[in-house]
Amino acid sequence: MMTIRDVARAAGVSVATVSRVLNNSAVVTQSTRDAVLKAVDGLGYRPNANAQALVNQVSDTLGVVVMDVSDPFFGALVKAVDSVAQRWQKHVLINNAYHQADKERHAIEVLIRQRCNALVVHAKALENAELISLMDEVPGMVMINRVVPGYAHRCVCLDNVSGALMATRMLHQQGHQRIGYLASSHGIEDVHQRREGWRQGLSEQGILPPENWIASGEPDMQGGEAAMVELLGRNLHLSAVFAYNDSMAAGALAALKDNGIRVPQALSLVGFDDIPISRYTDPQLTTVRYPIISMAKLATELALRGAAGQLDESEQHCFMPTLVRRHSVAFCQNAEPVTNSGDSLV
Amino acid sequence: MMTIRDVARAAGVSVATVSRVLNNSAVVTQSTRDAVLKAVDGLGYRPNANAQALVNQVSDTLGVVVMDVSDPFFGALVKAVDSVAQRWQKHVLINNAYHQADKERHAIEVLIRQRCNALVVHAKALENAELISLMDEVPGMVMINRVVPGYAHRCVCLDNVSGALMATRMLHQQGHQRIGYLASSHGIEDVHQRREGWRQGLSEQGILPPENWIASGEPDMQGGEAAMVELLGRNLHLSAVFAYNDSMAAGALAALKDNGIRVPQALSLVGFDDIPISRYTDPQLTTVRYPIISMAKLATELALRGAAGQLDESEQHCFMPTLVRRHSVAFCQNAEPVTNSGDSLV
Repeated sequence: MMTIRDVARAAGVSVATVSRVLNNSAVVTQSTRDAVLKAVDGLGYRPNANAQALVNQVSDTLGVVVMDVSDPFFGALVKAVDSVAQRWQKHVLINNAYHQADKERHAIEVLIRQRCNALVVHAKALENAELISLMDEVPGMVMINRVVPGYAHRCVCLDNVSGALMATRMLHQQGHQRIGYLASSHGIEDVHQRREGWRQGLSEQGILPPENWIASGEPDMQGGEAAMVELLGRNLHLSAVFAYNDSMAAGALAALKDNGIRVPQALSLVGFDDIPISRYTDPQLTTVRYPIISMAKLATELALRGAAGQLDESEQHCFMPTLVRRHSVAFCQNAEPVTNSGDSLV
Repeated sequence: MMTIRDVARAAGVSVATVSRVLNNSAVVTQSTRDAVLKAVDGLGYRPNANAQALVNQVSDTLGVVVMDVSDPFFGALVKAVDSVAQRWQKHVLINNAYHQADKERHAIEVLIRQRCNALVVHAKALENAELISLMDEVPGMVMINRVVPGYAHRCVCLDNVSGALMATRMLHQQGHQRIGYLASSHGIEDVHQRREGWRQGLSEQGILPPENWIASGEPDMQGGEAAMVELLGRNLHLSAVFAYNDSMAAGALAALKDNGIRVPQALSLVGFDDIPISRYTDPQLTTVRYPIISMAKLATELALRGAAGQLDESEQHCFMPTLVRRHSVAFCQNAEPVTNSGDSLV
């Protein structure tokens, strides 16, 4: 591989001079600059990004940490980050952290050691204190889907509780009272917040949902299918189910179809996120829209502005979800009364 | 931010000595090493990965180039690469290149400039000659889903023609003759190869499919839906359709349902890839399995072995697809004869 020494030899200058030319330092004459660039071209020399990053103290990569890029929600997030990064001529360095504290810590550390000066981080397992010390160190580090107290201007989030509340209220307006919840088994705040919105929506109607109206699984199609099978096995006479996300709802649809339970005639189903699959299930899913593309683009711009020291500390970036009404919800035909007798309550 | 100078000052040694300790150089006494490491701990100093990469001439990142990480096929590919990389304590630097030559070139160049010594590359637009010159430069660069002549031991590929041929033969065994093809609009070799397998399968039965049995779209659900709508509008009396991939087949299912055409009773449908969604459509998709996870894991291991100079040049890595029979294919009830009169042929 060609080195900077080969270039220096060909141009008849020192290695330090070649370095100054490649890093656009001003203290080089035009004739020297021309000689060096000619040697670079002639030899096909490729500047070492690590060396350039050392000199400039920044790299041309933007870091992004997500749970798992093969999850469609995070795939959409990364694609949105990439679309903004490309406009800024930045390259995206991605790390999966699987909602595990040690992996989240490691992923962020690696990106900082690579001298990424802009980071978009989806981290759920790390404590606020640890994130704060990292954010203090890296002005271009922005959180997505989390609020770190005191750093709201560098956090892009969604009101999960309101989203789940909207879904539950809408089901209630359609006559549903016995509404189950398909929860994600990941112990992250989104899961608790959406459960809280569902619980609030029911309690507004005087319904205190028992614990066994909730079944949990991995937040994907397979997990949703398994959780729905478990809920069906409990014979709870639910007329509607609110799912943690669209993937789980799509999996639940498969379980319902296998058991001859028609959606929405016999059971109404609501998802969360509005990923593309929600328009391709049968029936199309009624869901709560998570504007992840807009949010990820904003987070990327904030990270790049933060790296440039141009953030407005008074701004806040909390998004509100919206309902998307498709075809998986119908009016409840045979509402059974809810009696809270003997069940352990949520 | 703490610098190496702060560490040197605290340990009472030179910057060069700190650097030697952090890079495990032998020429440092144990007492000096201890003093430096104590200062590093005490100050919370984080070594600069760019500086370490310069000294060691490798980085701890493994590069991967794909079309688009938000496509479920490429999401699965990246996740499989990540699973192997983690075992090797490597971090994955990912670039989307969208099947465009300039973006593919740029993505690979960036990763090489970052001194990634292992690369897993899915590039379809670049010419062989350009890939060869890059592979000569980087011994740990491995291609996935492409064979570069003379570099078969560093290429992991699938026999696309055989996969499409299997699907078409199976449809023919079920009595189908008028079999359409939903093509991807990306001009990559996979599209041509799968079309060639479909054409061969029909021509074995004396059927020369006319050009209008093919409709194209983006290789996702929306593209499959649009292409299926176009095929339906041509009123071709097709009894079966072979789709470029499962996402397109899932989109086609939605179009068929909207038009009251039952699958498989009125029309049989076969996908390609066997991504998770194929088990969650209604009916579940019969498809051709692309073992992308095994292939991506192998490619990652080859890249890491290549970087270590441990590749066996006599090996070949061409995988064979297999048929996965689910519920989207049925015996053809009313086969219309095929008359090749006046149509332009494929």
